[in-house]
Amino acid sequence: MRIEAADFFYLAMPEVTDEADGSQDALLVRVAAGGHVGWGECEAAPLPSIAAFVCPKSHGVCRPVGDSVLGKPLRDPSDIARMSAEVAYNSMDLLQAAHTWSGVEMALWDLLGRARGEPVWKMLGYDRSQPKTPYASVLFGDTPAETLGRARDIRTKKFRAAKFGWGPIGRGDAAQDAEHFSAAREGLGEDAILLVDTGQIFIDDVERAAQRLPALEQARATWFEEPFAASALASYGALAARSKHVKLAGGEGAHNVHMAKHLIDYGGVGFIQIDCGRIGGIGPSKEVADYAVARGVTFVNHTFTSHLALSASMQPFAGLGDHRICEFPAMPKPLALELSAAPQRAAGGACSHARHCCSASASVMPNVRSKLLA
Amino acid sequence: MRIEAADFFYLAMPEVTDEADGSQDALLVRVAAGGHVGWGECEAAPLPSIAAFVCPKSHGVCRPVGDSVLGKPLRDPSDIARMSAEVAYNSMDLLQAAHTWSGVEMALWDLLGRARGEPVWKMLGYDRSQPKTPYASVLFGDTPAETLGRARDIRTKKFRAAKFGWGPIGRGDAAQDAEHFSAAREGLGEDAILLVDTGQIFIDDVERAAQRLPALEQARATWFEEPFAASALASYGALAARSKHVKLAGGEGAHNVHMAKHLIDYGGVGFIQIDCGRIGGIGPSKEVADYAVARGVTFVNHTFTSHLALSASMQPFAGLGDHRICEFPAMPKPLALELSAAPQRAAGGACSHARHCCSASASVMPNVRSKLLA
Repeated sequence: MRIEAADFFYLAMPEVTDEADGSQDALLVRVAAGGHVGWGECEAAPLPSIAAFVCPKSHGVCRPVGDSVLGKPLRDPSDIARMSAEVAYNSMDLLQAAHTWSGVEMALWDLLGRARGEPVWKMLGYDRSQPKTPYASVLFGDTPAETLGRARDIRTKKFRAAKFGWGPIGRGDAAQDAEHFSAAREGLGEDAILLVDTGQIFIDDVERAAQRLPALEQARATWFEEPFAASALASYGALAARSKHVKLAGGEGAHNVHMAKHLIDYGGVGFIQIDCGRIGGIGPSKEVADYAVARGVTFVNHTFTSHLALSASMQPFAGLGDHRICEFPAMPKPLALELSAAPQRAAGGACSHARHCCSASASVMPNVRSKLLA
Repeated sequence: MRIEAADFFYLAMPEVTDEADGSQDALLVRVAAGGHVGWGECEAAPLPSIAAFVCPKSHGVCRPVGDSVLGKPLRDPSDIARMSAEVAYNSMDLLQAAHTWSGVEMALWDLLGRARGEPVWKMLGYDRSQPKTPYASVLFGDTPAETLGRARDIRTKKFRAAKFGWGPIGRGDAAQDAEHFSAAREGLGEDAILLVDTGQIFIDDVERAAQRLPALEQARATWFEEPFAASALASYGALAARSKHVKLAGGEGAHNVHMAKHLIDYGGVGFIQIDCGRIGGIGPSKEVADYAVARGVTFVNHTFTSHLALSASMQPFAGLGDHRICEFPAMPKPLALELSAAPQRAAGGACSHARHCCSASASVMPNVRSKLLA
């Protein structure tokens, strides 16, 4: 079969705020080939991403993504890999191309899975899908009291792990941040896994980031996520060398496999967090998962959008039993839930739909609401 | 003064081909503040770049570039640096933002230069601008005979240095490539500086790239440019370790300062080639130039578009007398010449307009044709 169409659907909440909440809009992609359709999602700015698919070419290696996709054969996963390589080469000077291609690639796996009646993780080479431990992913409160409240709420919901991110961290001094870390630990209880995400706030300033290490150690945080800009490898490496117990985590900004591998090798992260909707889709994510296994680094999905993206992002490490933790957006906007007919659920400390999202379905996204098909 | 407007102008040749020739279209930016205007150019796909300036925000750190620019104060270079940091943070999830911002940043320097009656290189901290040796930048011919003809033509035009790029190199075997390298050397003569650009054709395959080293040594090439994808740092590092005399060159794909620094530190390049229209403008390019000086690496501009971009790309290393070589697009499309009222010229082995492009003018781009202002 050949790829006949790729259509983009831009959805947004009525109001989009300045919160670091990626579930406020969504860019879905529907591909069609041989009587089948598949769905994917770009974790990306919708309009530039759509433009990168349809724009006129500027020259031979600044071509729109569509040039490497439309009309191309789709028989098996090797065709998806070939298109990935073609997009990387033909669109090397079109920066946004990686984000656009990510959603298309995801949709192609979905389509192939539907056509074959086979789960994506199986096509990726896994024998079975393993259960995961979802962590509730939320933002820090504006005050330590608010952070405490959110942590207690998460505990009530019986999550065994939680990640607090962004908010006021890094905008004041280290003592203020320490109060938030300790509030999060207090609210979650002693046994829960606590993860902290500072959203690149220290840019590349190793000293300022290092000032947060004692309080993170004190609160027994498992990881210190994105202290620096996605490309600031040397700063990651320097901070990793200064940390005793807290491991660094990062990788959501990787828009190709090299960036993720370098964050492991030069940046010294202990957790590599990959967003299928940015790195170029499911295939490149699986390549990073393989690399992480070989380097003794833990692979984790990065997902802060819809349950379509959540389902897709589980596939690349579905078969890795030791890479157990998974990101689960716990307070998404209604948009991110409502576009799926049957969102995944996490309850009782485990992802109740682990079988559903990682194993049972033949496709990445079997249940996009039919209203989107109109 | 405050930034009142940023307008984009998308120009293209009637026909855009699959050649790796970046002069086939152009995205110009005009900014206005306090009664002055400034011009810049994004070396980027026009439509996604325009979208990245005007699109609705997706969340707090996926904001359009315009949010960090329009209405902001512009008093001195520190304001430009502040906006750079804000774009990097506020648009961290909008991949295309760096390319969009590059043209805007360039235009802001131009505007500031016009307002102050001061050359940009002076605002960057240089006391004087140094003459450069322009190299003619052309594509390899389809056959060694064609490459020989182009090399002879360049010699006739009295260039002392030339770069051959892309074309058939890396698409056949190493012996075929060797014929092109030797034809280029033969046509240029024994004394000329020969540079070779393989346009990322080996992706990350160190072995295939290394097979070209003996012929490059034989032809006395000064550098081996972009053997690999822009982010494939480990491959650069491995190849650099295997080369005797030929140094690696790269960096045009860097869309932030970190990428360029890492290409020096992890990739082992001897020449760092920066495109002002991609890395975020003139300020970040100057930061890379400073870093290169400290590391004993030679800074070179990357320019394959208009003479606006050429003029801008000279500023960051205008004052570095030892960093002498500069890229000069020798066979650009008419578009890239005609948008300037007075294009730079290179003749007699030196850039005859070195004073003009690096020193004399108060602005980066004093002579955009008035028809663009319509």
